[in-house]
Amino acid sequence: MFITFEGIDGSGKSTQAHLLRDTLVAQGFDVILTREPGGSPGAEEIRSLVLEGDPDRWSAETEILLFTAARRDHLERTILPALAKGKVVICDRFADSTRMYQGLSRGDLRGIVDQLHNIMIGREPDLTILIDMDPAIGLSRAKSRQTSEERFEDFGQALQEQMRRGFLSLAREYADRFHVIDGGRSQSEVASDIATLVQEQLV
Amino acid sequence: MFITFEGIDGSGKSTQAHLLRDTLVAQGFDVILTREPGGSPGAEEIRSLVLEGDPDRWSAETEILLFTAARRDHLERTILPALAKGKVVICDRFADSTRMYQGLSRGDLRGIVDQLHNIMIGREPDLTILIDMDPAIGLSRAKSRQTSEERFEDFGQALQEQMRRGFLSLAREYADRFHVIDGGRSQSEVASDIATLVQEQLV
Repeated sequence: MFITFEGIDGSGKSTQAHLLRDTLVAQGFDVILTREPGGSPGAEEIRSLVLEGDPDRWSAETEILLFTAARRDHLERTILPALAKGKVVICDRFADSTRMYQGLSRGDLRGIVDQLHNIMIGREPDLTILIDMDPAIGLSRAKSRQTSEERFEDFGQALQEQMRRGFLSLAREYADRFHVIDGGRSQSEVASDIATLVQEQLV
Repeated sequence: MFITFEGIDGSGKSTQAHLLRDTLVAQGFDVILTREPGGSPGAEEIRSLVLEGDPDRWSAETEILLFTAARRDHLERTILPALAKGKVVICDRFADSTRMYQGLSRGDLRGIVDQLHNIMIGREPDLTILIDMDPAIGLSRAKSRQTSEERFEDFGQALQEQMRRGFLSLAREYADRFHVIDGGRSQSEVASDIATLVQEQLV
C-alpha cells in the first residue's frame, strides 16, 4: 500500500508520517517512510538543486522537469521495489505537491505538470492524507524551522491560503484516494484519526 | 542564427565549433559559443549529475528528464536571449544528441524523448552540422582525453558504429537543417568546408 501525506508548509505532514510509521511497525507491518523531493540517493541530489539557492534560480518549467526527474528516480529505486516486496510505503509529499506548487502557484502550468506525470510517472498513491489547517498557524510553524531549503518558503499568508484551497480542490478532483484530516487539533488526536483511517484501508 | 554541432565522441565537434566561432568573430559577427549538457549556470550543475559517476547512476528515463531540464535552462537563460540580441549562437551538441544517445542507445525511448522535446523545448536549430567519421578514429581520440565525465564513454566500437548510423539517419529525417561534413580529413579542410557552408546561410 502506497500512502502519501500532503498539505501546506507547517501542517504537520512529516510529524504525522513518522507517527503513522511507528504505529504500523508496532502492529507488525513492514513499512518504509520516505519523502519528496528526494527519497533515493539520486533524487536527494536533485533535491538540493531544487530547494536551495535563489528563488529565481530555476524557471517554473525547469523546476517541473527536475521534480519529475527526482520522482522518477525515487519511484524506480525506492517506492516500486518496496511495494513489490509487500511493504507499506509512506511518503511525505508526492505528485500532488507538484500539481499544487508548480501547477498553480507559479503560473498556470498544471497542463504541463499533468503531461509529464502521465508520460514519466503514471503511478498514483493508493491513499492520500491531506492535513488541512489554518494557514496562519502553518506559516508560523514553518517559519520557526532552521533550514537552507528555503527557495519556496518565502510565501505570505495570502499565498498559503491559496495553497490550502488548491489542496482542497485536488482532494475533490481525486476524491477516490484523498482523505482530508483536520490538522487544527492536538498531535495525538490527528494521529489517532489517521491510524484509524489507514487501518480501515489495510484490512 | 542558431547553429549546432553533432557527431560521435572524438569527431572533432568542439574543435570545429571553436574554429567556426573564431572565423565568424573575425568577420565581425557577434557570436556566442556554448555547449550541452550545460551552457548556463544551472545546466552546468545538472551536467555534473548526468555525466559523472557510475553508468547505472540514473535510468535512461531519469536521464532524459535531466537532459531536458538542463536544455530548458540553457535555452531560457543563454540561447534565446542571445538570439534575441541578434547574435549567432554556436552550440556543441543539442537535442539531436538526446534523440541519439537516450532515444536509441539505451532502449527504444525515442518516443519519450520526442514528447518531452515537444512539450518543454520546441525550438530546433537553424543549421546542424554533423561531423561524420570512422568510429575507430573517433574512439581513439575520445579515449585519449582525461576526464571525470565518463558515464557515457565506456562504449565499444560496435556501439560507436551504431551511433554513426543513427546520426546519419537523423540527418535524413531533418534534411532541411542537417549538413553532413566528412570529418576524416585535416582540421583545416573540415573547418574551411564548415565556414563556407555557414557563410552561404548567413548572407
